[in-house]
Amino acid sequence: VSGAPLGEFDLIARCFAPIAAPEALGLLDDAMSFAPLSGEDIVITKDLIVEGVHFFPDDPPASIAAKALNVNLSDLAAKGARPLGFLLGFGRPKGKSTAWLDAFASGLKQASEAGQCPLFGGDTVSAPALTLSVTAIGAVPAGGMLRRQGGNVGDAILVSGTIGDAALGLRLRLEPEADWARALPGAHRAHLLDRYLHPQPRLALAPSLRACASAAMDVSDGLVGDCDKLASRLGRVMDAGDVPLSEAANAAIRHNPALFDIALTGGDDYEVLAAVPPDRVQDFIARAGEAGIAVHRIGWLAREGAGAIWRMEDGSVRSFARRSFVHGEGGSP
Amino acid sequence: VSGAPLGEFDLIARCFAPIAAPEALGLLDDAMSFAPLSGEDIVITKDLIVEGVHFFPDDPPASIAAKALNVNLSDLAAKGARPLGFLLGFGRPKGKSTAWLDAFASGLKQASEAGQCPLFGGDTVSAPALTLSVTAIGAVPAGGMLRRQGGNVGDAILVSGTIGDAALGLRLRLEPEADWARALPGAHRAHLLDRYLHPQPRLALAPSLRACASAAMDVSDGLVGDCDKLASRLGRVMDAGDVPLSEAANAAIRHNPALFDIALTGGDDYEVLAAVPPDRVQDFIARAGEAGIAVHRIGWLAREGAGAIWRMEDGSVRSFARRSFVHGEGGSP
Repeated sequence: VSGAPLGEFDLIARCFAPIAAPEALGLLDDAMSFAPLSGEDIVITKDLIVEGVHFFPDDPPASIAAKALNVNLSDLAAKGARPLGFLLGFGRPKGKSTAWLDAFASGLKQASEAGQCPLFGGDTVSAPALTLSVTAIGAVPAGGMLRRQGGNVGDAILVSGTIGDAALGLRLRLEPEADWARALPGAHRAHLLDRYLHPQPRLALAPSLRACASAAMDVSDGLVGDCDKLASRLGRVMDAGDVPLSEAANAAIRHNPALFDIALTGGDDYEVLAAVPPDRVQDFIARAGEAGIAVHRIGWLAREGAGAIWRMEDGSVRSFARRSFVHGEGGSP
Repeated sequence: VSGAPLGEFDLIARCFAPIAAPEALGLLDDAMSFAPLSGEDIVITKDLIVEGVHFFPDDPPASIAAKALNVNLSDLAAKGARPLGFLLGFGRPKGKSTAWLDAFASGLKQASEAGQCPLFGGDTVSAPALTLSVTAIGAVPAGGMLRRQGGNVGDAILVSGTIGDAALGLRLRLEPEADWARALPGAHRAHLLDRYLHPQPRLALAPSLRACASAAMDVSDGLVGDCDKLASRLGRVMDAGDVPLSEAANAAIRHNPALFDIALTGGDDYEVLAAVPPDRVQDFIARAGEAGIAVHRIGWLAREGAGAIWRMEDGSVRSFARRSFVHGEGGSP
């Protein structure tokens, strides 16, 4: 295998055709078609990620590829959808070696298989910076897609997994020599870095959401700001002390309490935020647990006009000056 | 209206929400869902276009927006599909003014309305160069998507519209002071430049293709090379003199006969190439004519192994050294 760059045809045959769906016609046609199942709606989402904005140029190519797909699968999961397939727009800068492309393809294959989401098609073009545009296609029972704007007063607000790991992982990338970073045990550092680099879509949570939730979305721009977007016509009362944090995040925050705000407002969590009626909460927690995913209640929806109140563990109430993270502003790679 | 750049939320509300489909939930959710019609397949295609590769940075923003959508609708048309909607990945460089964005939005709206293809969703991110990733969704009767790899020996090969205008329009952009360019009447120059800047998807041809064609694709990378991709297992005999040329292209070629090769191998035609069984050719021409689209027979499919023969008007037979156009190589902006 030479290190010379692959042409478009060879790139498709070598890197993309192995993960193509049967309906994708070997990726040799202009389009693909598939027959939707009767009684199901089609769900579509699209996230674009760009080198230097959403990931570091020197991130491992397998990680970049997996992230491009998984951030889209995270949206499908939060909408209660089952993945059907995805399309990849691959904007390729000059100078990516065959080894780089092979590693990229292996990461894409791993994520595609893990998500049971084969490649439906795409387009490969030249671009000044690595640009990955994924459109993910899924399905839900007719009318069953969860929306941000469901939810009723009194519904509990729950979140999956742990919050803030990825934001702290990004801080570690940007400030590896900070006091708190140097004080953190290696296993904790590795956990935070991994959570930034390798978002895991909560696909196993989709059936529990469909069964129990009144509204849902994924947390990708920071928990505090994203909470405002769930059932946004209503108010909410949040308990900051109930936000689930990993051991690694807790250790970092013990070293530097200012990191707590970064954990709650930083991006890239790719967890699921859901509103669940009070009488379904126990069932939701149980179903999620059976699917292997911990979910925690962190607040509840209040009447319209009540605003967003965050109650701290010391009993005080506060608001966050910076409620969410914007890619390309300040902290982003 | 200020000239300051719009934030993501304002950009979506101002420029994209007005063309959103009802199912797109005001573009305020992470995904959209729609109910496919019973008895129809979903057809999906994706083309990415990048500033400096597929269009000039100083092209009018309305034209860039329309091209991004229309090159995708061209694929749907060639597959016999009816558009349902599209998603836009919008990679935005710094410094685009509100006036630029408004003009972009107006071009997108015009193309969206002309194609009866509303916005389903998308993503807006920062990018080093303007990057437009469109995924177009369409529908065909179950099993009815036309493929490149249909077709049988003896089928006629037909092409819509006229060939080479866009490639000559691109040459005009690159070499406005060439002898042939200066000799060309203004109306002819305008025609060629317009065909490069404003591809027109042949959506009205889709029903005729479904009724009559055995294989189809759009011509986007140059006629000679794209002909090789239609029913590629078979040979073909092509009549170069039958390739439909506009008055403007004919005038340019009279001034400079070398432009004939550019017309037949240059890209960006966005016409439809179809194989049609001999007994359906008259019907296809008649149906296409009723839809307002001229189609011309330019060759026929020959037995496997016969290669691709281009017969010239003088009776000679030739091959083309450069069979198609590659964006980003040489002649591209």
